[in-house]
Amino acid sequence: MAELFDGRLLYGAALYPEVWDKNIVASDAALMAKLGMNVARMGEFIWSALEPDEGRIDLSILHDALNILDDHGIATILCTPTVTPPIWLTHGHQGRLHHTADGTALGHGSRQHVCTNGAYFRERAAIITGALAREFGQDRRVISWQLDNEFKSHVGGCHCPSCRDLWGQWLEAKYQDIAQLNEQWSTAVWSETYQSFDQIPLPAPTPFLHNTALMTAFNDFSQVKINEFAAEQSRIIRAHSELPITHNSGFGFDLDNQGLYSNLDYSSFDTYPAAPNYPAFLMNLDYFPHFGASGKTILMETSTSHGGSIANYGSPHPAGFVEAEIFANFAAGSKGFLFWPFRQHCGGSEQPHGAVVSPWGAPTIGFSSAARGGELLAQLETILTGGETLPPRVAITYSDRAKTALSVEPGGKLDYRGVLSGIHRRFVEAGIGRALIPEGASLDAYDVLLTPYAHHLDPEFLERVSDWVRAGGTWLVGPGTADRDAHHRWHSDAALGALESIAGVRGVLAFPATGSGTSAEFLGWQGGLDGMSTFMECTTARPLGMVRSGPAAGLAFVTENQGTPETGDGRVILVGSLPDGFEDPLLVDLLIGYATTPSKTWPARTEARELGAGGGVVEYLRRKKGRLQRWLVNMSDTTAELELPFPTTELLSNTNMNAGKYRLEPYTYIIAEERNA
Amino acid sequence: MAELFDGRLLYGAALYPEVWDKNIVASDAALMAKLGMNVARMGEFIWSALEPDEGRIDLSILHDALNILDDHGIATILCTPTVTPPIWLTHGHQGRLHHTADGTALGHGSRQHVCTNGAYFRERAAIITGALAREFGQDRRVISWQLDNEFKSHVGGCHCPSCRDLWGQWLEAKYQDIAQLNEQWSTAVWSETYQSFDQIPLPAPTPFLHNTALMTAFNDFSQVKINEFAAEQSRIIRAHSELPITHNSGFGFDLDNQGLYSNLDYSSFDTYPAAPNYPAFLMNLDYFPHFGASGKTILMETSTSHGGSIANYGSPHPAGFVEAEIFANFAAGSKGFLFWPFRQHCGGSEQPHGAVVSPWGAPTIGFSSAARGGELLAQLETILTGGETLPPRVAITYSDRAKTALSVEPGGKLDYRGVLSGIHRRFVEAGIGRALIPEGASLDAYDVLLTPYAHHLDPEFLERVSDWVRAGGTWLVGPGTADRDAHHRWHSDAALGALESIAGVRGVLAFPATGSGTSAEFLGWQGGLDGMSTFMECTTARPLGMVRSGPAAGLAFVTENQGTPETGDGRVILVGSLPDGFEDPLLVDLLIGYATTPSKTWPARTEARELGAGGGVVEYLRRKKGRLQRWLVNMSDTTAELELPFPTTELLSNTNMNAGKYRLEPYTYIIAEERNA
Amino acid sequence: MAELFDGRLLYGAALYPEVWDKNIVASDAALMAKLGMNVARMGEFIWSALEPDEGRIDLSILHDALNILDDHGIATILCTPTVTPPIWLTHGHQGRLHHTADGTALGHGSRQHVCTNGAYFRERAAIITGALAREFGQDRRVISWQLDNEFKSHVGGCHCPSCRDLWGQWLEAKYQDIAQLNEQWSTAVWSETYQSFDQIPLPAPTPFLHNTALMTAFNDFSQVKINEFAAEQSRIIRAHSELPITHNSGFGFDLDNQGLYSNLDYSSFDTYPAAPNYPAFLMNLDYFPHFGASGKTILMETSTSHGGSIANYGSPHPAGFVEAEIFANFAAGSKGFLFWPFRQHCGGSEQPHGAVVSPWGAPTIGFSSAARGGELLAQLETILTGGETLPPRVAITYSDRAKTALSVEPGGKLDYRGVLSGIHRRFVEAGIGRALIPEGASLDAYDVLLTPYAHHLDPEFLERVSDWVRAGGTWLVGPGTADRDAHHRWHSDAALGALESIAGVRGVLAFPATGSGTSAEFLGWQGGLDGMSTFMECTTARPLGMVRSGPAAGLAFVTENQGTPETGDGRVILVGSLPDGFEDPLLVDLLIGYATTPSKTWPARTEARELGAGGGVVEYLRRKKGRLQRWLVNMSDTTAELELPFPTTELLSNTNMNAGKYRLEPYTYIIAEERNA
Repeated sequence: MAELFDGRLLYGAALYPEVWDKNIVASDAALMAKLGMNVARMGEFIWSALEPDEGRIDLSILHDALNILDDHGIATILCTPTVTPPIWLTHGHQGRLHHTADGTALGHGSRQHVCTNGAYFRERAAIITGALAREFGQDRRVISWQLDNEFKSHVGGCHCPSCRDLWGQWLEAKYQDIAQLNEQWSTAVWSETYQSFDQIPLPAPTPFLHNTALMTAFNDFSQVKINEFAAEQSRIIRAHSELPITHNSGFGFDLDNQGLYSNLDYSSFDTYPAAPNYPAFLMNLDYFPHFGASGKTILMETSTSHGGSIANYGSPHPAGFVEAEIFANFAAGSKGFLFWPFRQHCGGSEQPHGAVVSPWGAPTIGFSSAARGGELLAQLETILTGGETLPPRVAITYSDRAKTALSVEPGGKLDYRGVLSGIHRRFVEAGIGRALIPEGASLDAYDVLLTPYAHHLDPEFLERVSDWVRAGGTWLVGPGTADRDAHHRWHSDAALGALESIAGVRGVLAFPATGSGTSAEFLGWQGGLDGMSTFMECTTARPLGMVRSGPAAGLAFVTENQGTPETGDGRVILVGSLPDGFEDPLLVDLLIGYATTPSKTWPARTEARELGAGGGVVEYLRRKKGRLQRWLVNMSDTTAELELPFPTTELLSNTNMNAGKYRLEPYTYIIAEERNA
Repeated sequence: MAELFDGRLLYGAALYPEVWDKNIVASDAALMAKLGMNVARMGEFIWSALEPDEGRIDLSILHDALNILDDHGIATILCTPTVTPPIWLTHGHQGRLHHTADGTALGHGSRQHVCTNGAYFRERAAIITGALAREFGQDRRVISWQLDNEFKSHVGGCHCPSCRDLWGQWLEAKYQDIAQLNEQWSTAVWSETYQSFDQIPLPAPTPFLHNTALMTAFNDFSQVKINEFAAEQSRIIRAHSELPITHNSGFGFDLDNQGLYSNLDYSSFDTYPAAPNYPAFLMNLDYFPHFGASGKTILMETSTSHGGSIANYGSPHPAGFVEAEIFANFAAGSKGFLFWPFRQHCGGSEQPHGAVVSPWGAPTIGFSSAARGGELLAQLETILTGGETLPPRVAITYSDRAKTALSVEPGGKLDYRGVLSGIHRRFVEAGIGRALIPEGASLDAYDVLLTPYAHHLDPEFLERVSDWVRAGGTWLVGPGTADRDAHHRWHSDAALGALESIAGVRGVLAFPATGSGTSAEFLGWQGGLDGMSTFMECTTARPLGMVRSGPAAGLAFVTENQGTPETGDGRVILVGSLPDGFEDPLLVDLLIGYATTPSKTWPARTEARELGAGGGVVEYLRRKKGRLQRWLVNMSDTTAELELPFPTTELLSNTNMNAGKYRLEPYTYIIAEERNA
Repeated sequence: MAELFDGRLLYGAALYPEVWDKNIVASDAALMAKLGMNVARMGEFIWSALEPDEGRIDLSILHDALNILDDHGIATILCTPTVTPPIWLTHGHQGRLHHTADGTALGHGSRQHVCTNGAYFRERAAIITGALAREFGQDRRVISWQLDNEFKSHVGGCHCPSCRDLWGQWLEAKYQDIAQLNEQWSTAVWSETYQSFDQIPLPAPTPFLHNTALMTAFNDFSQVKINEFAAEQSRIIRAHSELPITHNSGFGFDLDNQGLYSNLDYSSFDTYPAAPNYPAFLMNLDYFPHFGASGKTILMETSTSHGGSIANYGSPHPAGFVEAEIFANFAAGSKGFLFWPFRQHCGGSEQPHGAVVSPWGAPTIGFSSAARGGELLAQLETILTGGETLPPRVAITYSDRAKTALSVEPGGKLDYRGVLSGIHRRFVEAGIGRALIPEGASLDAYDVLLTPYAHHLDPEFLERVSDWVRAGGTWLVGPGTADRDAHHRWHSDAALGALESIAGVRGVLAFPATGSGTSAEFLGWQGGLDGMSTFMECTTARPLGMVRSGPAAGLAFVTENQGTPETGDGRVILVGSLPDGFEDPLLVDLLIGYATTPSKTWPARTEARELGAGGGVVEYLRRKKGRLQRWLVNMSDTTAELELPFPTTELLSNTNMNAGKYRLEPYTYIIAEERNA
């Protein structure tokens, strides 16, 4: 594949030619060009306009819009419209609808109401996507494809009659023998034993709790099936087009991103955080580049000012925040930034959602940000060209499989996205660069890997991490990690299964520590421990944190293993328990500091480090022509201080900055390129 | 029509001859007479006693009860019993039941469980009501009809299969052409486009939000249909009877009162507020006289002491509160006051509800209030006779259509009844008289009209208000008003559509201001603004309140237009935003004060004004033989002060009161008639 | 029947030979023996392992496990496995599933998913239980039967089509004549009148509240039906076995325990309270001995450390708490103590639940408690042999019928188990012994009976209590008691019906007092009263507590009747109202103190009294060879003080303790046997 978008950086917004008159599309296109935009996204909800009656397909509305946009030098990301099937696909066909666990069929009138596993839906989706691919697959006005829209943002696994059958077939293909399934699912508990695959129920309502293996498998099934649909659609497009294909994902959706993007060319994401929650915006930039064939990502949707719908109004961003987002987006290596939508909707149900222009065509409160964004991007493009992003020293495993495990066993409160966001936020606030990576991502670039709250470690993953440790990596593993097998069962041989060997420990006690009076010490910190915990005796490891009271008194809760054949040049720091997740700042800072500070014994393998300015200063490191660039932006609402260790040139203003202390106002940014003193 | 009830004031309670033995009815009737009561209400739940088997109708139980009551000089309001169909109407006929949005059929065993749009229900309802009308339509023991009971107090729109069809037919009749509907509903958004009317779903569960035009239309449909039933029943009665017909409505029900009472002779209401929430009691008196052919209302149901059921116990009223309610009721012009029920129920599910006598026939805690009420009414009747109620200077639009709009778009928190109650309460607490009027009510009597939180202004309403403004009225319009069309869409031409012209503004920005840092000034007040807001530039208006910070800095949030051809002798004060609804007391007082204080430029068109005593003192102005009467009652639990500007005669005690300051104890009342000094 | 378990005390845990390999069962059995355990419970979830295909029954897995256990000297309580029917019983048979009120069928994958009233379920249950009874009914390795598991712990009354029919039939059998039902249910209210029994609906969703008589009857129906199933299963077993039969009940389940155990030989219970809620543990010991033919109970399930599931983690008990539970259990006269489970489950959904050994076979945090428990029991057994438990002076009525009434009429907040637990806790904290007894239990042993929150008093119960009063008992009755009939209706003759005569009062006013400004005095206490209340005039009684303000001012809220023919040698203290349930500590202490303190007029009929040490000290009185033993255990987490009035011998340490003050550390215990000074 050639370089994504021929190396262009994208700036634009979503357009709806199916909703607005052609003259409005034309005036919007003209305004987009004036604002410095070069891309539009179209078509993700357009199906009924293209195929108003079953089988009568007319693509002229798209041709017209593409022409208008092309006239203004604006390229298009064209979407398949499969997220909103026309009324003829479901009217009178209850069985084609998405069914919730309690058997409710979700009907026409919104989106994602169809069962995406249904044979007839797949057939019609193939036809409309095929038509689009044939028509526009080699159209120079189009630069990319987007599949569907935000898979599984509104629905989880489907419980329709058709899925009921597919589920049994899928299980049969996976387990072959029902005895195997019974054994691996522990169905002997509560006489759940199945005689045949077709008997296995969906996780519909029961008087008490479902089997955890069944729930885990059903999550897998649902994720595999939507990825199967994505792959199927991709194949249809690729038969006619060499354009790159993506899908707009997001943290809130019920997806296996790794499987999804394994068939796609680049990733993209939708994100609508409020300004005070800016680390949630950065999470996307730290996570999504690790998917897709090209390893590139773009921001596909965000608001110029505020999100929301009739059900909930979002708060407008403070002035300057959107520009700070644009700066961070490109600093981090993202290849595009698109607003949703360009023109605020008159009707539907997202009328209150912010846009670039109002329904009556006037500038909204987000307009000026969009304009300044265009100017900024023009400036950045030159600086970015020929440069490269430097990876951070630290990576954090963000695993959709682990997310499933925590949804199956929340233990009353744990939520994977929530606890991982908390961990990520601590790095952001400390000014430390970090990657969020799926289990399958390469570890080569990193010095340190964190793997918290992953109940089950896949053997392949464990082996790959072990290799990386032996090559010198530091693995901070736990808490809540490695205590279950692939079917969400405890191991039957050891508390932490295969992890114990490389960690150099023996898991002795495993229990929920909350309320147990368990207090502990670690590097001077003292406090209580909470949550599902494992406490250890050391075999080859040395204890770093010890339990002082409670049922586990005398056992270790943090250990470090190094200098053994299993750890080679690296080390494994195992955390068996923490105070209420990662919520104790002192302990977490100690842990992070301990794991990430190079020393004689564990020299850092990467060279460049962030300033660690903190106080809302977000930093991305880039290199161009051998020179280190510090892209610095204050994402917080208070003025921050930072100290430049070397003299630099600020590239946006092209002025010299001596080494020394500087103040960075809220939502402002600089690019400090090191120069010889 | 003759004067309602031949000019009598009604005082009484609800009786259940279908529940109690004849001798108990007789002893209750005797006690009613002793308590000064002259009316009973009967029959709203009696159907199964009249028609125990389908088609076998026997009305003797009513004859017997009417005779007993008549023997004690007690007249009867006779109800049609359609709210509780007998078991034979629904048993084995699931399709005749009311169905909720999730498809649940609500069954026999309570009330309102039948779909009131069903053909067979309508047929049986016509038969039983016809039988009653023929039998009692000209019976001198009966003085009025009540239709059914509290329409839609327990259920919203029905989702039964029959309603599914009626909905499509109703839409077809309204829109004629499906293209028209698609256009006006913006169904192009999310490919919701319909090919035919029969495809349009009820607002049943979907994965995400429904189209707002569809939700708005379904609310209309449900309200139109219940009013159609009421009209149908009225016609049946009128074929045999000239007695006035009413229905007992209430603020909590899902109704279009204007449409409902357009076929009825007078309004009536049920109300059960706790004493500290006494403004909610007054809301009824300020609102319900604006409906029905006669422009009269009666209180049809309230408790002697406390409401409640097995699910929730109400708190008993403090001593004297019920008497204060009776005083306020007649002071405001209501023609009747009835308790529910006379005798506390033994069984059913409202056993804990207060009454006049206990299930075992003894006086309850409410008995003495009922007795004093009878004495009070005897006294008041003489004073009231020949007098008239004076309308207040201020009217507030209370629109069932606007209520629908806010239920469709709550934006996370807004509730129409709640915010309007808040506005109403500020007038009550300031001691300012006020009317709550539907959109269709005449404005002639008022100086000032408030129209807050009405997303859509009907063109006819806007034109009528404009006429009234030109004739000298002051219109305080907004916030949250006029920003949508009849299909809940933004206007496509201007932020506030046709309102902008008469308001003399151009709406520039519209966004939810909460959290946006929007601060503003108005007549010395300074503070933050919240909620869905519109900010304006003035064309002919002058800015009264200005935004100082946030995205709308420099725009106006309150403007005043006058002296233009559009405003004539009046003025339009437009409020684009407020701090969190009407919750900022200072600003609201400023606004109310500004709008309601006469000045050289805007002289008051009405003469008499309330004392504005505040502190719980509620005042109604009446006039008799040219003399102004101030009916004053302290509805609060603390002693209030008031100052009489002129010497008066207190009519209850027939004593003179000089001009000067007086104290009014909790729940006490006086009638101060002005006299020559 | 011979003495239960031949007089042995049981100590053990639940085993799952259907889940674990035989060698694991063997090693667990060996460990059990080492820990001093003598009993295993097996089989309550084993059905699919015994009958994997319909009709193919193979019991060898049980034989094998029984052999292994027998080899280690461990006897077995064998359970019928009817709580978890195999997949073949329900797959493809939706109609056999338990249906909730909203019509949801609860499916396979958990437990209690079958309708236990279904004919085919009953047939298959009879077959499997018959097979077990035939095979093991006279097996010396088995010592008892347990029916099913925790009836109705997860489900309430079933709404399946079959139950719909059974309900009508049951009502017909009970009421014979539909007119009778209509009359007694007050169906004339709201036209609910039924023409035939088959029309009467289950209490499925309605727009508003159901008839309280219908709800009460449906609760009765459900409880009668599950007891019918238990009786049916018992008969099947007894045809082949003379072993005692029990069922493991619990406070949280929707059961009529009196009816249930009327067919069983002894009671047993499951209990998982957290340590700070130790009175909830004691409630079981105070309650369950009053059921079953033998009047004996055993603790069938509790945790070694913490309960919980994937949905909620419990907190581990503090060290020593489980031993304190074991001590209290046997002190109170319970005949057994079993942990659940012995080995923590690998899979299923209760993986986080504590056990004796971990899934990988290592000691858990509960292991040491289990070991110390074995040692303790060995010591206790000698002391217990030949001794007897002394009943306390005070009994509290705990009525499943009263529980139903409060669930039918919660009035917004009341929960029977909650308020009764609150009352029970006050006795525990005051160190006063108490029995919780069902309505049918003998009163002979007690001086004082409390009967709070029993809306309806059965005539038979009232007569029996009256006899006991006349024989010298003190009855503290109320609040919330005797104000309704068997159909949850107010009495039509008197506020408190037949109670008024023996209480010597006339109920004057009945209303919910919360918020009514009702303040009162009682023995120096002054305060407000709340909740549904009855206020009285005295006929023969004397007023003890008087209302000073509010609607009931001048009436009594506590009265005492004695010295009349109705009260004989006893007295009736009637409480008509209390401050917010039993939540005012001062008033409650006064009441308890007044009722339980012997005086000249009311001498105590029982001799021995507890020390009343309070502060967490729980005391059970026992007698052996004429000597009084005080079994004292500190269940709280703080050190307690107690004073021994006589010199004693501490039997566990065999040391003498002089009269005087002693400190008792948390979770420690002594057995102080009085000796001659």
